[in-house]
Amino acid sequence: MLNKERAARVRENMKRAGLDQIVVSSTESVFYLTGIYVKPMERLLALYLTSDGEATLYANEIFGLESTPDLPVVTHRDGEDAVRDLAKAVRPGVLGIDKFLYSKFLIALMSARADLKPALGSAPVDLARMCKDEAEREAMRHASKVNDKVMGEIQKQVRAGAVESELAAEVNRLYRENGGTAGPQLVCFGPNGADPHHGGDETVIKPGDSVIFDIFAPVGRYWCDMTRTVFFGSVSEKQREVYELVRRANEAAEARAKPGVLLSELDATARGVIADAGYGKYFTHRLGHGCGLECHEPPDVSGATEVPLQPGMVFSVEPGIYLPGAFGVRIEDLVLVTETGCEVLNKFPKELAVL
Amino acid sequence: MLNKERAARVRENMKRAGLDQIVVSSTESVFYLTGIYVKPMERLLALYLTSDGEATLYANEIFGLESTPDLPVVTHRDGEDAVRDLAKAVRPGVLGIDKFLYSKFLIALMSARADLKPALGSAPVDLARMCKDEAEREAMRHASKVNDKVMGEIQKQVRAGAVESELAAEVNRLYRENGGTAGPQLVCFGPNGADPHHGGDETVIKPGDSVIFDIFAPVGRYWCDMTRTVFFGSVSEKQREVYELVRRANEAAEARAKPGVLLSELDATARGVIADAGYGKYFTHRLGHGCGLECHEPPDVSGATEVPLQPGMVFSVEPGIYLPGAFGVRIEDLVLVTETGCEVLNKFPKELAVL
Repeated sequence: MLNKERAARVRENMKRAGLDQIVVSSTESVFYLTGIYVKPMERLLALYLTSDGEATLYANEIFGLESTPDLPVVTHRDGEDAVRDLAKAVRPGVLGIDKFLYSKFLIALMSARADLKPALGSAPVDLARMCKDEAEREAMRHASKVNDKVMGEIQKQVRAGAVESELAAEVNRLYRENGGTAGPQLVCFGPNGADPHHGGDETVIKPGDSVIFDIFAPVGRYWCDMTRTVFFGSVSEKQREVYELVRRANEAAEARAKPGVLLSELDATARGVIADAGYGKYFTHRLGHGCGLECHEPPDVSGATEVPLQPGMVFSVEPGIYLPGAFGVRIEDLVLVTETGCEVLNKFPKELAVL
Repeated sequence: MLNKERAARVRENMKRAGLDQIVVSSTESVFYLTGIYVKPMERLLALYLTSDGEATLYANEIFGLESTPDLPVVTHRDGEDAVRDLAKAVRPGVLGIDKFLYSKFLIALMSARADLKPALGSAPVDLARMCKDEAEREAMRHASKVNDKVMGEIQKQVRAGAVESELAAEVNRLYRENGGTAGPQLVCFGPNGADPHHGGDETVIKPGDSVIFDIFAPVGRYWCDMTRTVFFGSVSEKQREVYELVRRANEAAEARAKPGVLLSELDATARGVIADAGYGKYFTHRLGHGCGLECHEPPDVSGATEVPLQPGMVFSVEPGIYLPGAFGVRIEDLVLVTETGCEVLNKFPKELAVL
């Protein structure tokens, strides 16, 4: 069933972007607009939307979807040309394409229809999804509340003999206990923390290690995502200096967040704190990412995003410093932009903790 | 580091396909060729290969990849144009594109370089990956051995009060205990089994239910995937008839598998058994899919795949009958094509079982 209110918002965005027709294919965007949640894997799931009111879902028969009065479903079978019917339906000219549509479908569409001009077509849906409505805000608050609880529980398990992968598995057990879904968790001891994407491996904790917990999961359909860094047994002067710097960068960006400020300014605020102390080159990634139906979704919170904050946006604020061979520190919250500032969804403390 | 032997095989396939240059971007294909395993999420990871010997990896800096003498790594940062350097490097004319490259990168490449003709470019790598080398065959045998064990353990837990989602979680626990990684598992009781992609929900088992276990996980880097259907408490005549039909379809296709036979013929063999008994329209999906570094990978085992079986291919043989509102039966093995026939990797029995 088409969500009429959301579809209307998307169509307004299409008109503003000069797009008469778009193909929406990501699981989450299709869910946002239809309530239908399908992971198509290598198969085709494509919602065709026009700015003048057409909406049709093209889907592999195996998904078992049925037409409703406002949303006809056109199916194909395994072994058939997946884009056959879609290629017949689209109009000549510019066709907005979901950024996550697999190239195999786009190339097939282009070779079936030489009169198409493919263009990036995700913005109309992304812009709508970026500003959460009230039900979505509640779902995000709830998910982050679960995350605060899981963070508290997992930190109790930092002890001699702890293994990264075991703590990561335990995080997943805690999520399942609290309505979340398991996924890969980032638990990094000591030098492993200098790689921002290190997953939990067989490393055993050592006294003096920094311990990064970057934990995230969907709770229902909406994601939580938080990072805390603690220290095991003791903390060196250098570790303390880096920790307090990252914490100040995180808090400075959060303090600045309010409607009208640019996302790039938030990134610059945090980056400035770190650069002023001489660690600029060790903060190697963007400040954050939008979060909602996907863990990573628009807006991109980086120096390149000259987009003003708007009420309803939810994104992460996660500065980090990574010292190769030594250790890393990252502190991350999700924040929800309000009319006057922001609500930090994660309440878990950030005071330096030695466990 | 570039795997020279595999890269050479891919380059031969490129020449045969008339492709001078390709972009390889899927995690598994990049791993296959370089040993580098990165899940880039929304970021860019792209291996550019030419048939005359060039190989360069374009990657977000956050992945922490370093150049080696045979494989330079060109990095970009969050917030920068991800395809900037790749767009400068590619040559005019046809560019083979990974089928799983996100359209956002393809559209950006096309708008930066009007002299490019994008074409589907996965076949050279897919064809190489399709026929497993000896080390890969051992990995596949081992993964399926783990799966046989997990299937045996989980079937012991079919009892009054069993809940789909609890059995699914238990399957994952068993995988973790045996070196596998958790994922979504398909456990379907009774009418739920009539949806081939139904996941485990809060349904409680009832006497007379069919119980489908479609369980799959990577063990190390290579996947196992098997389905068995059992009955709880009792089995009706109709259930028995459908079960034996699916089993015959599965065994007929496996008996026919040997080099030279077309994949479409295998599909037709199983489908013929089911259609002859009048159930053709209830077998709604292809017979199977290749399996290896991905759970679903080429070859597609469907009526449309007019490709001969070759030694080293590994794919699933999984006919099913789905009776809406009533029940479903599916029986699936992975098979490895040998010089003279096929090795069925799953040894778990297929005799009708009432638990």
